Amino acid sequence: MDQISTDLTDRGADRAAIDRALREAVDTLAPDVAQVASYHFGWTDAEGRPAEARPGKHVRPLLACLTADALGADREAALAAACAVELVHNHSLVHDDVIDRDTHRRSRPTVWAVYGVPAAILVGDAMHALAFEALSRLPGTRVDSASSLLGKTVNQLVRGQMSDMAFETRTDVRLGDCVEMVAGKTAALMACSTSLGAIVAGAEEETENSAYRFGFHLGMCFQHVDDLLGIWGEQEATGKPKYSDLRNRKKSLPVVAAFESESSEAERLRDFFAPAADQTERLYGLPTERRGDEEEADYEAMAELVSRLGGEAVSRSAAEAHLEQALAALDGMGLDTEGAAPLRAMAVLLAERDRL
Amino acid sequence: MDQISTDLTDRGADRAAIDRALREAVDTLAPDVAQVASYHFGWTDAEGRPAEARPGKHVRPLLACLTADALGADREAALAAACAVELVHNHSLVHDDVIDRDTHRRSRPTVWAVYGVPAAILVGDAMHALAFEALSRLPGTRVDSASSLLGKTVNQLVRGQMSDMAFETRTDVRLGDCVEMVAGKTAALMACSTSLGAIVAGAEEETENSAYRFGFHLGMCFQHVDDLLGIWGEQEATGKPKYSDLRNRKKSLPVVAAFESESSEAERLRDFFAPAADQTERLYGLPTERRGDEEEADYEAMAELVSRLGGEAVSRSAAEAHLEQALAALDGMGLDTEGAAPLRAMAVLLAERDRL
Repeated sequence: MDQISTDLTDRGADRAAIDRALREAVDTLAPDVAQVASYHFGWTDAEGRPAEARPGKHVRPLLACLTADALGADREAALAAACAVELVHNHSLVHDDVIDRDTHRRSRPTVWAVYGVPAAILVGDAMHALAFEALSRLPGTRVDSASSLLGKTVNQLVRGQMSDMAFETRTDVRLGDCVEMVAGKTAALMACSTSLGAIVAGAEEETENSAYRFGFHLGMCFQHVDDLLGIWGEQEATGKPKYSDLRNRKKSLPVVAAFESESSEAERLRDFFAPAADQTERLYGLPTERRGDEEEADYEAMAELVSRLGGEAVSRSAAEAHLEQALAALDGMGLDTEGAAPLRAMAVLLAERDRL
Repeated sequence: MDQISTDLTDRGADRAAIDRALREAVDTLAPDVAQVASYHFGWTDAEGRPAEARPGKHVRPLLACLTADALGADREAALAAACAVELVHNHSLVHDDVIDRDTHRRSRPTVWAVYGVPAAILVGDAMHALAFEALSRLPGTRVDSASSLLGKTVNQLVRGQMSDMAFETRTDVRLGDCVEMVAGKTAALMACSTSLGAIVAGAEEETENSAYRFGFHLGMCFQHVDDLLGIWGEQEATGKPKYSDLRNRKKSLPVVAAFESESSEAERLRDFFAPAADQTERLYGLPTERRGDEEEADYEAMAELVSRLGGEAVSRSAAEAHLEQALAALDGMGLDTEGAAPLRAMAVLLAERDRL
């Protein structure tokens, strides 16, 4: 991940402009709402004092900006699109942290953990509305397509998160379910980012479709790489404890692929991922804490098992295939080599996080 | 309230058209998300079977429709505006029920009480996004003003709800704070409803401003009447237990007005409304249950005290003043007597709920 941060710093001017636009949007909120949002973005600490937390990677707004730039959008329109996707992304992070009871994000306590669930729900709602407001300032008739796409995308995120939640207690999750969930939870918003970039540039429908496919396949690739890192990534690369997806019994794609192998060992893996007996006891509708009696060696053994049953290979080849499809879609956007270069570089960078 | 339901049935065709448009919008969601939304709207029971629950009053979408009709909008545009405000309203109801831990609404268990907090958060988000999608289908360049207004309105709702939450533990709430909270939590969305009606009709800015003021003052009036009903309303009129706002220690406007009276009895009222000692103990960020050792006679005495200290009179005269201002704004919309009649009738009806 540090590699990404460093390389994305090459786009320092873009990142600074996006940050400025986000701060301006958040400043329009009521002071107590803005304070919670500022904490979430890492601009302030829990007491509202300026802070220099490690910022998010801004992957989605950069994709929107780079696409808009490549297709000749003016700066203000490109930043409106960038702001909108970053606000929707953060809206869903804040709500998902409540839903998943995650207490930490980017090495800091999550919004609900600091300010309570009610404030987290409301601040998520505020960012959601701000995203549409950002789009409403686009010049001319592009607001309708942009708003329509963003609305549909939020509903794909909701659908993906609903499936993800259902996976926790389902024992019959198949590879196809996983792919569909990933498409909704990750790829849809990346596709929206590049597609909005094209819309605000006033691109032809065919170009916008190519931009959509570029973002979509890049999002699929991105999630497959994330799944690989969630099991086999080192803490210094991911910022999370090693084996974090195994600790959380996350039925990610490599795991589900391994479930489906013909090997008799698949049963052992399924047992490890069976819902805890107490997991149906829900406090105020939320899952109770995960049991924690496993040893590091158990996780290592499970990671090895997922790999032996072919789960790692499935994700790795899927990631490669989607990168290829993304680059093919980029070729369809009608840009010359120089124009496409920043998008191509970003795609390759996102795909190669696991080589660190 | 039954009076309202009956009278609004006079607008049966509008109500049916709004209901159809809402169902169409909800049908575009993923099946598991749509099921929860359908339950919330009362179309199905918790198992997904068709139900005939008492529907919402559709006050806001009717205001949008009637305004749009009066100003000559086409039917599709009027329904898009109506759908958008009803979806945003219901988004905030579903989220507010989680925030306030309300277990019942319209005599049925709330969404979170049936499906859990995670599903309630996500379904609220889905309705929020659907509202903007509804607007994105408006013809021409009106999407930008409509989207911008709706985004701003959601953020006024958020601000109002944040203040309302803060009031629970604050002991220094003043009348001005109350009025501001009500403006955000209720009047903003009523103003948005009438204003959107004008926008989709392509009205001049001056007319739209009058429509906004009409809805705003009507919303203020509506909330003052609600506050009166929350203390002095009978269960058959309100659908809630008698004295419900006193039971919930709601610092509504009549209560806060009574706080501010010079009488030595104001202290006794303040004591009754002081936060419970255990209320700062928050479970997962949510307030713990209210103590419940009061008798019916205590509530009756408190209602009588609020009245004696002038709280009832303040709300009653504020409700009347806002109705007058609403009707003056309606006069400014440039409609002839016949054209304004449905809006005038609706305003008077909403204001007179407490005469039942």
